[in-house]
Amino acid sequence: MRLTQPHIISVNDLTKKDVLNILQTAESFKEISERPIKKVPTLRGKTVVNCFFEDSTRTRLSFEIAEKRLSADTVNISKSGSAMQKGENLLDTMKNIEAMKPDIVVIRHSISGAPQMIADAIEAHVINAGDGMHEHPTQALLDLMTIREVKGRIQGLTVGIVGDILHSRVARSDMLLFRKMGIKVVVGGPKTLIPKGIEEFGVTVCKDIRDVIPSLDVLMLLRIQRERAEENLFPNLREYARHFGVNDETLKDARDDLTIMHPGPVNRGVEISPEVADGPRSVILNQVTNGVAVRMALLYLLIGDGTE
Amino acid sequence: MRLTQPHIISVNDLTKKDVLNILQTAESFKEISERPIKKVPTLRGKTVVNCFFEDSTRTRLSFEIAEKRLSADTVNISKSGSAMQKGENLLDTMKNIEAMKPDIVVIRHSISGAPQMIADAIEAHVINAGDGMHEHPTQALLDLMTIREVKGRIQGLTVGIVGDILHSRVARSDMLLFRKMGIKVVVGGPKTLIPKGIEEFGVTVCKDIRDVIPSLDVLMLLRIQRERAEENLFPNLREYARHFGVNDETLKDARDDLTIMHPGPVNRGVEISPEVADGPRSVILNQVTNGVAVRMALLYLLIGDGTE
Amino acid sequence: MRLTQPHIISVNDLTKKDVLNILQTAESFKEISERPIKKVPTLRGKTVVNCFFEDSTRTRLSFEIAEKRLSADTVNISKSGSAMQKGENLLDTMKNIEAMKPDIVVIRHSISGAPQMIADAIEAHVINAGDGMHEHPTQALLDLMTIREVKGRIQGLTVGIVGDILHSRVARSDMLLFRKMGIKVVVGGPKTLIPKGIEEFGVTVCKDIRDVIPSLDVLMLLRIQRERAEENLFPNLREYARHFGVNDETLKDARDDLTIMHPGPVNRGVEISPEVADGPRSVILNQVTNGVAVRMALLYLLIGDGTE
Repeated sequence: MRLTQPHIISVNDLTKKDVLNILQTAESFKEISERPIKKVPTLRGKTVVNCFFEDSTRTRLSFEIAEKRLSADTVNISKSGSAMQKGENLLDTMKNIEAMKPDIVVIRHSISGAPQMIADAIEAHVINAGDGMHEHPTQALLDLMTIREVKGRIQGLTVGIVGDILHSRVARSDMLLFRKMGIKVVVGGPKTLIPKGIEEFGVTVCKDIRDVIPSLDVLMLLRIQRERAEENLFPNLREYARHFGVNDETLKDARDDLTIMHPGPVNRGVEISPEVADGPRSVILNQVTNGVAVRMALLYLLIGDGTE
Repeated sequence: MRLTQPHIISVNDLTKKDVLNILQTAESFKEISERPIKKVPTLRGKTVVNCFFEDSTRTRLSFEIAEKRLSADTVNISKSGSAMQKGENLLDTMKNIEAMKPDIVVIRHSISGAPQMIADAIEAHVINAGDGMHEHPTQALLDLMTIREVKGRIQGLTVGIVGDILHSRVARSDMLLFRKMGIKVVVGGPKTLIPKGIEEFGVTVCKDIRDVIPSLDVLMLLRIQRERAEENLFPNLREYARHFGVNDETLKDARDDLTIMHPGPVNRGVEISPEVADGPRSVILNQVTNGVAVRMALLYLLIGDGTE
Repeated sequence: MRLTQPHIISVNDLTKKDVLNILQTAESFKEISERPIKKVPTLRGKTVVNCFFEDSTRTRLSFEIAEKRLSADTVNISKSGSAMQKGENLLDTMKNIEAMKPDIVVIRHSISGAPQMIADAIEAHVINAGDGMHEHPTQALLDLMTIREVKGRIQGLTVGIVGDILHSRVARSDMLLFRKMGIKVVVGGPKTLIPKGIEEFGVTVCKDIRDVIPSLDVLMLLRIQRERAEENLFPNLREYARHFGVNDETLKDARDDLTIMHPGPVNRGVEISPEVADGPRSVILNQVTNGVAVRMALLYLLIGDGTE
């Protein structure tokens, strides 16, 4: 079953049915990565161009591995070494790539809205691999897949998201997707890093994360960036860790089955203590494993011909 | 039918028959990129090393996509991260690569003559992907393919080339190839950027491009580089645009069927106005599409075994 | 026959039987790179991640070509553009990669011991592609393969190694491997660049390389790094060349069948003169060719299923 949209730009473009279709497809693709021969011919002869105009290891690697396990031909471009350094505008760069007849273009860009602009301009399918402070829909989908895998259900769960909500495209895509799928979302973090009016997303803001921890099924911690302290949005990493970092002590009133998630890369000892990151509640690495499966599912649902 | 030369270094090495052979092969390969399964097994088990010692997006991507659609194994090296940064000389780097038994080496290098020097020293086939201010033969071939595609013929056409003729390897390869194939070539641009004695190439220099526009079948605009203004070769980009930039007004006396070409990346509003770049006369993106086909043809003619 | 260890970290982990198994497998794989179709399906559907956290051309290329000729899916990461630049620690980066289910991880890292630490932490097989001043086992294996190929035997040969023994992981792995396999090793170079107590490796230190040249079967020259002169470990490259550089004059008392080796990249005119590097004694490029074969053998012995 195809998706209702030809592109994956924003969680908003996906129907609930699309989301369930993606999760189900990802669950079936996950098994491929466990086989001795981790490869199916599904996308043989398809061309995928990975355009990471912003640095990334895990997301680029995850897409590239997903593409290769589906037998697609993949080529990569990065910001350095590209014509954009010669002053070419993004749309011209992408129209040039389009002229080489790719089937899918995966884009990470520091400018919010860049993938949408490109999807409007080119014929190839576009997957947003993270755009500015806007969205990171494939991350939200892999987060949701991980939650369903651990909890056995989605509807009615309560998820806490703690950290720099203001600048995080992961938080934004997660909130949109979780709300769409009937998950209650509570956010926390330094006041300066919680966007005003965030309640319009249908989420609750908590003053102190400790107050809500007992009610959470899942606690998602976000990477805090040193740069934000330099912008005076919070005093420093040590202060952040003291007030918002999560360790065994913070979790003393949590449910036994509270699940800890983090989109990575992790700042150990800042937003999360090593014992929590590596502890039994953590599914941080499951998220990474599911990332490959979700990306395989999206590639397949966008351009696979239905015969695996 | 094999080419008369084992390498593609300069347009001068190609006979007229070679050129027609390449164009015909490229035209048949072009269709592969339009298929649902864009892949043929022609170069399975062949190794192509793409050595881009100078930055490039579109040319590297075009070669890499061409190689993968022919099922070759491809590896890339760039200047950064190479042993040349440790002081190894180019020939030693290339002899090392040769020792790994590649079938074809694609080279872009800032030094004119580097690909020839390498072709003389190693056993693998060498394709020049642009060397200094010398040549860019695959660009000239894709330009010629695009002209033949649009005009239905080659012989007897008149092509204008405007811009920094002095520093442009594209202009040089285009002039050599177009003249070889019976095309009349007129060049224009700031006097400081027209090489003295250029008439020896068999081309005509025009004082004002507007005088010759009515006689042109094709107008090829070249990217002007900001650096040249800093070298005082022309005052600044605004002045350049005023005198040599092409817009609808410049083209008011052009033939209805005048075709606009540009090797990219385009400086919108400098050598070409957006309405011309994106207008009905422009085949700029067709050039890019044909680039993949021409490179597939060259790879095939150099090492394919005649069985597609 | 599988190796006794799941990882290739140090020459010390290999038994003599392992070494002979690797050489024999490499010799049979070498022929694949000479075929018109340089590809076997041995590792189809296996994923290899090449992590070159330190710059490299020839080693990365050699691994990547080896992997592709065995039909593995390969992805590359380098230091720039990785999450480690965002402050993620190496182990977290590698645990993330592990979560994407690679079969083999190839690692080059500037920190001695990094590959061992990673092998202890992840499930995938690890191959050390050079770690700090510790080891470079695949280089030592290709050196041994080249020696056996040229000499027809291993046991009882005498190999001289000249240069910066102190900082060279190649020298260290070579010494360990050659000694294990019954080769007599003599080392030479500036006193400041010979580690104290090196005799414990079972090697002999010579005062002047010229004294021992007549007794050598093989002379391995090491790249001397300009940086060491800046650390005052020797006066300058010219002085180094005068005392330790090898040219035809240095070799006047050598045996007719003395073989010259160098791991590259070569400093022509410093540790080796051009006439020696390119002369009939030199097998420098054979080493590079054998590098691909040795790496194919290791990949196969670690994860091949025994059916080629």
